[in-house]
Amino acid sequence: MSVITLPPIRQLDAESAGVGFFLCTQKDVRPGRNGEFIAVTLQDASGRIAAKVFDGVDRMRGEFEAGEFVKVRARGNLYNDRLQLIIENIRRVHPEQDRKEGFREEDCVLSSARPVDEMWQELSELIASVGDGYIRQLLERVICANEKQLRVWPAAQTLHHAYRAGFLEHVLQIARVVSWLAEGYGANRDLLVAGALLHDIGKLQELDYGVATSYSREGRLIGHITLGAQLVREAASAVDGFPPPLLTEIEHLVLSHHGCLEFGSPVAPMTVEAFVLSFADDLDAKINMVRQAIRDDNGDGEFTAYHNRLERVLWKGR
Amino acid sequence: MSVITLPPIRQLDAESAGVGFFLCTQKDVRPGRNGEFIAVTLQDASGRIAAKVFDGVDRMRGEFEAGEFVKVRARGNLYNDRLQLIIENIRRVHPEQDRKEGFREEDCVLSSARPVDEMWQELSELIASVGDGYIRQLLERVICANEKQLRVWPAAQTLHHAYRAGFLEHVLQIARVVSWLAEGYGANRDLLVAGALLHDIGKLQELDYGVATSYSREGRLIGHITLGAQLVREAASAVDGFPPPLLTEIEHLVLSHHGCLEFGSPVAPMTVEAFVLSFADDLDAKINMVRQAIRDDNGDGEFTAYHNRLERVLWKGR
Amino acid sequence: MSVITLPPIRQLDAESAGVGFFLCTQKDVRPGRNGEFIAVTLQDASGRIAAKVFDGVDRMRGEFEAGEFVKVRARGNLYNDRLQLIIENIRRVHPEQDRKEGFREEDCVLSSARPVDEMWQELSELIASVGDGYIRQLLERVICANEKQLRVWPAAQTLHHAYRAGFLEHVLQIARVVSWLAEGYGANRDLLVAGALLHDIGKLQELDYGVATSYSREGRLIGHITLGAQLVREAASAVDGFPPPLLTEIEHLVLSHHGCLEFGSPVAPMTVEAFVLSFADDLDAKINMVRQAIRDDNGDGEFTAYHNRLERVLWKGR
Amino acid sequence: MSVITLPPIRQLDAESAGVGFFLCTQKDVRPGRNGEFIAVTLQDASGRIAAKVFDGVDRMRGEFEAGEFVKVRARGNLYNDRLQLIIENIRRVHPEQDRKEGFREEDCVLSSARPVDEMWQELSELIASVGDGYIRQLLERVICANEKQLRVWPAAQTLHHAYRAGFLEHVLQIARVVSWLAEGYGANRDLLVAGALLHDIGKLQELDYGVATSYSREGRLIGHITLGAQLVREAASAVDGFPPPLLTEIEHLVLSHHGCLEFGSPVAPMTVEAFVLSFADDLDAKINMVRQAIRDDNGDGEFTAYHNRLERVLWKGR
Amino acid sequence: MSVITLPPIRQLDAESAGVGFFLCTQKDVRPGRNGEFIAVTLQDASGRIAAKVFDGVDRMRGEFEAGEFVKVRARGNLYNDRLQLIIENIRRVHPEQDRKEGFREEDCVLSSARPVDEMWQELSELIASVGDGYIRQLLERVICANEKQLRVWPAAQTLHHAYRAGFLEHVLQIARVVSWLAEGYGANRDLLVAGALLHDIGKLQELDYGVATSYSREGRLIGHITLGAQLVREAASAVDGFPPPLLTEIEHLVLSHHGCLEFGSPVAPMTVEAFVLSFADDLDAKINMVRQAIRDDNGDGEFTAYHNRLERVLWKGR
Amino acid sequence: MSVITLPPIRQLDAESAGVGFFLCTQKDVRPGRNGEFIAVTLQDASGRIAAKVFDGVDRMRGEFEAGEFVKVRARGNLYNDRLQLIIENIRRVHPEQDRKEGFREEDCVLSSARPVDEMWQELSELIASVGDGYIRQLLERVICANEKQLRVWPAAQTLHHAYRAGFLEHVLQIARVVSWLAEGYGANRDLLVAGALLHDIGKLQELDYGVATSYSREGRLIGHITLGAQLVREAASAVDGFPPPLLTEIEHLVLSHHGCLEFGSPVAPMTVEAFVLSFADDLDAKINMVRQAIRDDNGDGEFTAYHNRLERVLWKGR
Repeated sequence: MSVITLPPIRQLDAESAGVGFFLCTQKDVRPGRNGEFIAVTLQDASGRIAAKVFDGVDRMRGEFEAGEFVKVRARGNLYNDRLQLIIENIRRVHPEQDRKEGFREEDCVLSSARPVDEMWQELSELIASVGDGYIRQLLERVICANEKQLRVWPAAQTLHHAYRAGFLEHVLQIARVVSWLAEGYGANRDLLVAGALLHDIGKLQELDYGVATSYSREGRLIGHITLGAQLVREAASAVDGFPPPLLTEIEHLVLSHHGCLEFGSPVAPMTVEAFVLSFADDLDAKINMVRQAIRDDNGDGEFTAYHNRLERVLWKGR
Repeated sequence: MSVITLPPIRQLDAESAGVGFFLCTQKDVRPGRNGEFIAVTLQDASGRIAAKVFDGVDRMRGEFEAGEFVKVRARGNLYNDRLQLIIENIRRVHPEQDRKEGFREEDCVLSSARPVDEMWQELSELIASVGDGYIRQLLERVICANEKQLRVWPAAQTLHHAYRAGFLEHVLQIARVVSWLAEGYGANRDLLVAGALLHDIGKLQELDYGVATSYSREGRLIGHITLGAQLVREAASAVDGFPPPLLTEIEHLVLSHHGCLEFGSPVAPMTVEAFVLSFADDLDAKINMVRQAIRDDNGDGEFTAYHNRLERVLWKGR
Repeated sequence: MSVITLPPIRQLDAESAGVGFFLCTQKDVRPGRNGEFIAVTLQDASGRIAAKVFDGVDRMRGEFEAGEFVKVRARGNLYNDRLQLIIENIRRVHPEQDRKEGFREEDCVLSSARPVDEMWQELSELIASVGDGYIRQLLERVICANEKQLRVWPAAQTLHHAYRAGFLEHVLQIARVVSWLAEGYGANRDLLVAGALLHDIGKLQELDYGVATSYSREGRLIGHITLGAQLVREAASAVDGFPPPLLTEIEHLVLSHHGCLEFGSPVAPMTVEAFVLSFADDLDAKINMVRQAIRDDNGDGEFTAYHNRLERVLWKGR
Repeated sequence: MSVITLPPIRQLDAESAGVGFFLCTQKDVRPGRNGEFIAVTLQDASGRIAAKVFDGVDRMRGEFEAGEFVKVRARGNLYNDRLQLIIENIRRVHPEQDRKEGFREEDCVLSSARPVDEMWQELSELIASVGDGYIRQLLERVICANEKQLRVWPAAQTLHHAYRAGFLEHVLQIARVVSWLAEGYGANRDLLVAGALLHDIGKLQELDYGVATSYSREGRLIGHITLGAQLVREAASAVDGFPPPLLTEIEHLVLSHHGCLEFGSPVAPMTVEAFVLSFADDLDAKINMVRQAIRDDNGDGEFTAYHNRLERVLWKGR
Repeated sequence: MSVITLPPIRQLDAESAGVGFFLCTQKDVRPGRNGEFIAVTLQDASGRIAAKVFDGVDRMRGEFEAGEFVKVRARGNLYNDRLQLIIENIRRVHPEQDRKEGFREEDCVLSSARPVDEMWQELSELIASVGDGYIRQLLERVICANEKQLRVWPAAQTLHHAYRAGFLEHVLQIARVVSWLAEGYGANRDLLVAGALLHDIGKLQELDYGVATSYSREGRLIGHITLGAQLVREAASAVDGFPPPLLTEIEHLVLSHHGCLEFGSPVAPMTVEAFVLSFADDLDAKINMVRQAIRDDNGDGEFTAYHNRLERVLWKGR
Repeated sequence: MSVITLPPIRQLDAESAGVGFFLCTQKDVRPGRNGEFIAVTLQDASGRIAAKVFDGVDRMRGEFEAGEFVKVRARGNLYNDRLQLIIENIRRVHPEQDRKEGFREEDCVLSSARPVDEMWQELSELIASVGDGYIRQLLERVICANEKQLRVWPAAQTLHHAYRAGFLEHVLQIARVVSWLAEGYGANRDLLVAGALLHDIGKLQELDYGVATSYSREGRLIGHITLGAQLVREAASAVDGFPPPLLTEIEHLVLSHHGCLEFGSPVAPMTVEAFVLSFADDLDAKINMVRQAIRDDNGDGEFTAYHNRLERVLWKGR
């Protein structure tokens, strides 16, 4: 009997049925009307979905845990107007064997909608477009040294762009926006591109990222803002003749990018470029949160549920 | 003896000497080492300058008051490294007679650096570029009905763009920025252009503007945000078939453009467009304040004096 | 067998038994010691009560849903010192048939303790007592046009006076208080009565009210303060010769009644009347919250549980 | 030559001329166009006015100091549209001699517009109207023991009711307001009258009041709220059988009357009476500030200058 | 069969088994995989632990309630890497009978790690070391009069030192710290020792403490800060010749010890001693919270879970 | 005629007369009753004093400027109960010549009351007392490298310890306090001594200090907290085998020492040591401010004038 493959989560509907690979991020055994059932959350690159095991609970209970990649046979089902999966079979992945059937870790982890290679290409062109030789060398040095992480890192643990390659998606979008604003306000574009690419670079040390995202010791005790400024200073010291005043300006961009002291910047923006960067960073994070809250909201109404971080409801549109 | 005309204030130097027309915005008689002198502040379209009458105080004392246009004969002078004018003669303008010598009110009032006709042209093209017919009609209606004011209005009494045609300069720059951001974030450009042009429209009723800027009774008791929303609602009711939901969205843009309740918006942004507009408005005001603080600072150091509104010093650059 | 009718919820005790009509606002099927049971919340005009179905769960499970009016046969029961109802039978109301037995929607919805007709009479006399002809006409016009809603509307979704005719109860009490304060402080009573009756009038558009209360799209995106000011302006434009300065004063009362910007007023009170109105509104809401928290608290102690909105506990008295 | 007496300050105009007694609260010798002049501020029960000595400066310079009562011969004069006095003669008061000509200290100190005896009568009737015997005795005891101070004390050093007998005016007005609110909200009137009369009683120890008002050591280090609660507790201990729970309630009223911790109350209101009292106190202070700011504002416009305490401008009315 | 006694909670491990006496602070019957089980929380002087009844649920269900002392036979067990107790038998304590087997209430209530008698001795010596006779007498008087409570009282209901004799532990540690700081800053040590011992004395009236801690009526309506100041004033009035200015200084220390108005002090520190005391109090409370959060955290990571009061995570160390 | 030398400023009285060397920090020519006079502020190591030139103004006017060291002949004088100097002769210092008469720059600049050599000795012993070899080496390295600056640097531009060697005085006092607290709370003394000595080390780069104190470019754009953390990291990299986790802890101490984000720390304290250090730093700065405000206050009363930074008045004591 040939196996039908389930579509990506974002494309599932009540008619979907087949086999797929996912990351299981939550697993609970709960009492139900007809005995216990297992409630799980599954994730792939495109999204998250709730799923249930009603039949074969005792057999499948020990076949997987939260935090593992799983192979699942299931079908779509509408419950209270929300789509869920009814699981017929589930077990943890056996990497060697399952790879032959198409299992790839990166397909099972929530990811940026933009392909990484395309983003990497854009990043390279962006750096090449920087006119100031010192800044260009600084960027090349930092980017090369961290390519492996940069290709997969999320931009945050939970708040915004909290998915594989979210870091890259975030900094490229900011670079795009600050380039426009540099033109609009006669600001220094080279400095602003450097600020866009480097402002969060300390997150490479602040966060530990594998299947899940967590904070490192340095991340907590020192913080990504200071870690980023130190990384920039060290990288600049390796660029021959890097002018100290230029370094000070770039450090200022990194340090002030949260916009004010209450949000963790030890200094507030004092240059046009620092104002522009902190606005672009804040706006990009906010819009990512708004879009995600609207996409994730399952309610019937025109407005989302109350958003604790943004402290308001959001309009889902006409 | 032929008369030499003084250059605009921004181009004056210690060698300048001649005759010019200005607005006198301040006048004080003060005791000095050798008797009283008169200290005045003069303004033209390009800037402000301090000036002094040392000789002929008694004769000139009654020849003009603060708030009047004046004709002045003076020469440049450096005092504590700052440029000032030494006035040899000063009297209030006699419009009929002085117009023959080139006096024009608009040349004597602090003004946008951009020519008004050029901005008006840009405004017209911008409105013509709006794809949605209802929005375009709404904008045409509001703009036409208020052209006279729009060509001269400042954007605020003191904070930012507080000069002739500052309103136009401010909304056009925001329109430019939100057009880019609409592209960058897949937001509705037509809505955003409407928000850019209409968000401060209540200021036409909030401020009284002649030679100086002050608040009207409605401006104080109702405020430009509510006045603007009412003006938009009235204008839309005159556009045949204007869709109520579209009006609600535009009113939301106007009402939420200060970004949060503490700053006077009765509702916070709840759509991507409202977030974008409030950021663009805030950024444009901030950069205008930064640039002006740097331009106006006369100190020797690399940093400006403490800026009370921004609550920090600003870096004047390398 | 003749049917005994249950008393109103506020008068129930452990000895009560009989049949009654209610609104069911919550319904949950839960696992219990001896199988599943159904936990529901019932509401009538006088209050709310918890109730349980222990016997016949499978039969009754499908007979009603949350949000429906229900016919219930039940008896009182004390559980952990709190009164609840044990349901013997429950089904959704069949309006035509049940009306014959006395079912009326308004008896099943939490309501003001004051009779609506009595309040309406007081409202009419209050308007008639206004000396200024323009203000009186404005009030008559707004009240007539909205009588149907005004007779049932709540004052808020959850915070205070959140029940049928709560709006009317709230504005009449404020009108009473501001009349006294007008005398005590030599303020303009006509203006203050107008402010009392109109300050929340935008809630007629902000809230959707049927069996439950929710926010409308305009309510969220524009807000009741601005909606109210617009409604007042439109109504005044229909009163022949309404003096613009008088309209500005009334709009100021509506706009500033939350007392400060942080609470959503786009302008702060700038007149004695605006100060008086915002204090009276705040005090009336606070006392309604305090009284309700004390009435709803079931604990043994002298103090209520912590009140999240008021950020304190309240003393229930000696 | 018979002496013409100047009218009270509030009734002076540019035509006034004659002799009067005042308190001099400020005195500065300043350089002027024709030599030095003396600028002083004079006060009587009805208000304050600026005055100048232009002629005879050397002779009069030593005849008086700030803080002394003075005898003045002067005439009214308009300067920049504001009324001032031109002093022809000024010297410190010689009490024995000048009393014969009508000098009385109390006529020269800024005072409540209400006659003290009338207020005292109202106070006595108010206490007599209290139904609860314990509360009545407590009030009698506190009032009797402090009659001398109560007849002259101001309610504050600068903020509101900052004039002779302002304390009495303030507490009587609050008593009037809380009596109405007690009726309107079914609150305990006896408790509220006690709260109205006692809430600020600690100010008798907090402030030192003679010709001017200042803070005592206890006033600064302990504060009027705690001093008041202690005074109430001591007075109650002298009333035979005063019920401890009643004392606790009254202490709570005194302690919580600033409404919240940030404003210096160590506990927030937790009873309906405490909410009512704190609102009435705040409202009375605010209205006194608003009325005074409007009365003192000399500007031409419809609005006062920015009020630093209220953080807004105020509308002076149509 | 001889009975083995369980070690104190802090010394339990997975191998522990035997009988012990505890306070049961929580009891819940929950549905489980194999029928219901009972989840309880047990407490002794050294700590808290979770425990479960899996077998004999029906028999033991009625044998005890939350809030009672219990006799328990149990054994240690690791579940998700956390230690819990599996209960084999549990019943409420029969005091007379169980005292023979060693039951003592004080052994079953969370307590300071320091022996009370040792702390009492330190307290006595501390008072004896005070040089100023008035202060020493005041302290002796207050301490003697309250010895019984002082030996057992906690320092707070939940925040810090919330256990038996926590009050004593807290004030002695503060006395130690302020003695050092008095030396380091040339401050008045006698005053500071008085402040350390008296600053929280109002908590004896604010809290009711038996098996659990709760607030008294006076504690809520008046608050420990004012109660403490009143207690000090009354005690001082019983010391012959106690100098009023000294009393004012001590009252200031008590009243200002929360450091600022927002935290409930009606006056802010205005003397070096008041600054020192408020810092020492805050620091001691913070360190107690930090230590307890680290001790109670069961997670694997280097950091504790988010601490709601301190608004951060804490580092558990290398 | 032999020359009498003036005593240090703190010891001057109305009888003092003679010659002295000072720093002139302010100079104004002002109009007076009998012609112009010169008002200056003079400074030496012990304090500041106002002085006046009444005779010989024209001759002395050009003999010195603000910011220069001056030689002065003067005598004490009481004016409005405050001591000032009446200058008989003043001219700028001619270093070579005046050194012979005892002029030394350091005697003319406001300085710590503690001798620098004594403090340096204490610092050396303190470092030698550190048990952890890595920490001791780190401290030695940082201290040696910066001895020249450390011997003269102030701790701040204006707030606290704003005088020569104020930095050393401040860190030594903190080291003393944290040593006690390490003992009292069982915290790591070596870490705390490192934190005390290094927490403000970035101020060596933040401030420019010569005769006056100002901010450097790096000081403004990067800030002393980040500069200090970078300096520590660089110094540690030069210590062979310095353990990275130890470095992280020390960096955390430096970064979190302002106690919270609002005050410029990019991370809040997360360890007992970080809490202790931030409290000790804040307390030392506060007490220095309090002492200085009391010392500088010239008023008659028991309390100082309102202190803008501390937002209160301070008690000057009995």
